[in-house]
Amino acid sequence: MRASQFFIATQKEAPQEAELPSHKLMLRAGMIKRLGSGLYTWMPLGLRVLRKVEAVVREEMNRAGALELLMPAVQPKELWEETGRWAVFGPQMLKIRDRHERDFCFGPTHEEVITDIARREIRSYKQLPLNFYQVQTKFRDEIRPRFGVMRAREFMMKDAYSFHTDLESLQKTYDTMYQAYSNVFNRLGLKFRAVRADTGAIGGDGSHEFHVLADSGEDALAYCESSDFAANVELAEALAPVSARGEAKEVMREVDTPKQTSCEDVAALLGITLQQTVKSIAVMATAEDGSTRFYLLLLRGDHTLNEIKAAKVAGLENFRFASEQEIRDHLNCPPGFIGPVGVSGQVSVVADRSVAVMSDFVCGANKPKLHLAGVNFGRDLPEPVAVADIRNVVEGDASPDGKGTIRLCRGIEVGHIFQLRTKYAAAMDAGYLDENGQRQTMEMGCYGIGVSRIVGAAIEQGNDERGIIFPAAMAPFTVAITPIGYDKSEAVQAAAHALYDELLAAGIDVLLDDRGERPGVMFADMELIGIPHRIVIGDRGLKDGQVEYQARTDAAAQTVALADIAGVIKQAV
Amino acid sequence: MRASQFFIATQKEAPQEAELPSHKLMLRAGMIKRLGSGLYTWMPLGLRVLRKVEAVVREEMNRAGALELLMPAVQPKELWEETGRWAVFGPQMLKIRDRHERDFCFGPTHEEVITDIARREIRSYKQLPLNFYQVQTKFRDEIRPRFGVMRAREFMMKDAYSFHTDLESLQKTYDTMYQAYSNVFNRLGLKFRAVRADTGAIGGDGSHEFHVLADSGEDALAYCESSDFAANVELAEALAPVSARGEAKEVMREVDTPKQTSCEDVAALLGITLQQTVKSIAVMATAEDGSTRFYLLLLRGDHTLNEIKAAKVAGLENFRFASEQEIRDHLNCPPGFIGPVGVSGQVSVVADRSVAVMSDFVCGANKPKLHLAGVNFGRDLPEPVAVADIRNVVEGDASPDGKGTIRLCRGIEVGHIFQLRTKYAAAMDAGYLDENGQRQTMEMGCYGIGVSRIVGAAIEQGNDERGIIFPAAMAPFTVAITPIGYDKSEAVQAAAHALYDELLAAGIDVLLDDRGERPGVMFADMELIGIPHRIVIGDRGLKDGQVEYQARTDAAAQTVALADIAGVIKQAV
Repeated sequence: MRASQFFIATQKEAPQEAELPSHKLMLRAGMIKRLGSGLYTWMPLGLRVLRKVEAVVREEMNRAGALELLMPAVQPKELWEETGRWAVFGPQMLKIRDRHERDFCFGPTHEEVITDIARREIRSYKQLPLNFYQVQTKFRDEIRPRFGVMRAREFMMKDAYSFHTDLESLQKTYDTMYQAYSNVFNRLGLKFRAVRADTGAIGGDGSHEFHVLADSGEDALAYCESSDFAANVELAEALAPVSARGEAKEVMREVDTPKQTSCEDVAALLGITLQQTVKSIAVMATAEDGSTRFYLLLLRGDHTLNEIKAAKVAGLENFRFASEQEIRDHLNCPPGFIGPVGVSGQVSVVADRSVAVMSDFVCGANKPKLHLAGVNFGRDLPEPVAVADIRNVVEGDASPDGKGTIRLCRGIEVGHIFQLRTKYAAAMDAGYLDENGQRQTMEMGCYGIGVSRIVGAAIEQGNDERGIIFPAAMAPFTVAITPIGYDKSEAVQAAAHALYDELLAAGIDVLLDDRGERPGVMFADMELIGIPHRIVIGDRGLKDGQVEYQARTDAAAQTVALADIAGVIKQAV
Repeated sequence: MRASQFFIATQKEAPQEAELPSHKLMLRAGMIKRLGSGLYTWMPLGLRVLRKVEAVVREEMNRAGALELLMPAVQPKELWEETGRWAVFGPQMLKIRDRHERDFCFGPTHEEVITDIARREIRSYKQLPLNFYQVQTKFRDEIRPRFGVMRAREFMMKDAYSFHTDLESLQKTYDTMYQAYSNVFNRLGLKFRAVRADTGAIGGDGSHEFHVLADSGEDALAYCESSDFAANVELAEALAPVSARGEAKEVMREVDTPKQTSCEDVAALLGITLQQTVKSIAVMATAEDGSTRFYLLLLRGDHTLNEIKAAKVAGLENFRFASEQEIRDHLNCPPGFIGPVGVSGQVSVVADRSVAVMSDFVCGANKPKLHLAGVNFGRDLPEPVAVADIRNVVEGDASPDGKGTIRLCRGIEVGHIFQLRTKYAAAMDAGYLDENGQRQTMEMGCYGIGVSRIVGAAIEQGNDERGIIFPAAMAPFTVAITPIGYDKSEAVQAAAHALYDELLAAGIDVLLDDRGERPGVMFADMELIGIPHRIVIGDRGLKDGQVEYQARTDAAAQTVALADIAGVIKQAV
């Protein structure tokens, strides 16, 4: 493509309302233009990226045996009433009334429509399994659309729906989709993790989310660098320490902590590590018989409570944090100095696995302005009534799969696969006849990829102060040729055209910047829009038969012989 | 593609509500499924066809230098109010209110959105011309959707919009688009004509409609087989006869026509041709001063009145047909026997060009049950006050471009190109700075193709009692291999697989019918869905190293050596 025949409209500044790097950069690069709240036009530059993502998604879906179809965006209310979701979906569903006063919605998802097709088309077990997908514009009326294409109201989605006779077949297609999704994100050059997920409102059992890793992600993830383990931090297991509890070496003693109410401050005062301190979190839990009980949850000073895990401990199912008054009532001590030593039978102590192996630790003394040091279970206080995993994982923890250590990151959800089981098929009476002529309900899976969101997520993962760093597979152009003095030098023009033609002939997506702009403008534009490879052709270099080459991620340009540059590029691509 | 891994769901009967062949056949072939009124799912088989059309459209748009973008389907009311079309569009526009009670529509077209982009993006004449296009789902809330995808409410459209500094530039892009559209329809293998069109409500000057020729089309067209002339019958000019009026040879005389009130009946009674008769059509027209006048419009007996043309005759601008009473008042004669001879000064006679050259003709006598024969202008009645083209063209008329004779047909509009001029740019203040730094309003063109409608139109043009006859470029698969006894014969299976692999390797879109169905079922399916080439492989033929080959349009199959069949197909494709 010649830049003079394309539409490049970069901007120095992004509008105020753009918060995320990807949103700012997409606007500055001229990839998208805002039409209204959560509504964006994909300009030619942006659409090239979107179409590349779409093509990879389509290829992998086809390879996985899914069959593409295209359902209407506008869906009748009646189908949604069969599953009860017309009411459930709420204002996020954009409702429409047509000229005949019939109710429709702009489809936010297509389970109802595809299940309606399945129940009308599928008669026999012989037709199953089937996996249909589409790439389509969806609409979700977000209450506060933001982050550009990352949470737009109108967006492009790939949604697939599979139908099966049994769970085994569903699991097989689910695994195939898991692999297809991995292929998509690998081919797009994205760092991602598949995370086991709650199935939430959509129902069903097995479910994984695919997250692109990026600092701005909305989800906190734990993953293992040396395996494919990943989980939401809230759900990631902290393994029990492999080392046993050390022997008590110190005597228990009170230490003055006049103003020190946190483990950090106490450790600093005493000159010890946080790992030698224990924090006590006071909570109240109500038993089935209605009685309430006061608990102290013990965590190592450098750890934080994971409430989801804590609620899984027997007796703590519905716990809440204790009030200051409840703490004083049970421990006769203000918060900041409480601890598990010498408590009455009214208090139950639950220790995190990490605390259970500690010895000679420091904790609150249950007396104002005092802590205890050299504390040991069994000697100074009873063993806890329960030892459990009740903390959030931290960087450096052992990976639950035993294959390395955990790192923390944030993720942007770009894909989600579900085992819906019979939720929709049962609600909509989608059945088939089995080998014995008996009518059975279909098993069902669904598989979504946020095609347009991937573009934003990729930019969140790849950007620097100069602009976007696209993976090669997603870049709007793979190579930029930026001739210096294009309008003035015939030699530059001839060399640029020859190289352009050669790269085009090799099937490489090349942009020739023939706009006659100053070098600074060209370089800034090509860096901003994230083109992976740049070749500078100028009279000065040409005298020696040389050009300059720089990859988008290189710190500096290198000199390459004009005769070699096409080869270098073909090699790199 | 193997049929066992695809989704083929043909039906013997189409639903009652399907009227047109294309609608019936698309439903029977399982290409589309109805979701609601004017809402269709494109099933995998149909989507393959749609995508092939889409790809050709996209390639030709790109080749013509148009830049693809993608605008939102959902558009804010405010933009439509700037052009006044929010009110004008009426109930055909699907209106939407979002959760914040703001008004939107599901875009039926995108002039407002693209003009908004243009006015924000284009500053200088240096950026022009520009031509943007998109391939997108549109919605028009037709009051009575029917004919399947031919007039669906939700449909796929390619819409392009160009921006220019002046009319000359607009005309150049318009011509480029005209050529691109011709390329699209030629490449798709469709018989079509470009027809000069009224610009109608959208405004502007130059406009052509592209029609696929098919008996079921909604528009009556006149076209020339030996040139690219085509026009709506309503607008096609009937040239003046080249021969001059003959000399009067007969005397004028009354002939009895007791029951004959039509030219057909009179001609039959008198044993003359319709071409020797003249019919008189009585109309009333109101002059600018409010006075009304009675006219007789004379047409040759075999011609019909073209009201649009007649209204262009001076004085007839707002004519209406006369009532029986008005006829009796002015001619003292009942309808059926009226004519132009001996009328009073209150009656004006206007003759069609064909009538003006007639001599010795037959017309009504203005007396009940009588006609006049041997009538001649100048001798028996004055020359008409006006001679004009006021008739519809008929087959055999000379083509207005002088390159052959006219044929009549019906057409399905699948494309439309407009010169919008400054209609939208002026309304929305879309300007640019010219060479002199002066602000000017942009010239604009728009260019639409009904992508999904093309599929229906192609089937209207190509079908027979066995099903669809797709042009090769649009067929869901190019070749079908139908092995007989696939499940039973290893030889058949081996030959089928080898041929399948060979054709696939040659880049040919081949369907292997490995469903194990009976030959009759396979043949009927492949014919119904319109696959251009079919190869039958069976044990009987294989013994002699032979297979059967039949093109979809062939009357019978021919025997081809197995060794040669791949070559035959590659040749044919």
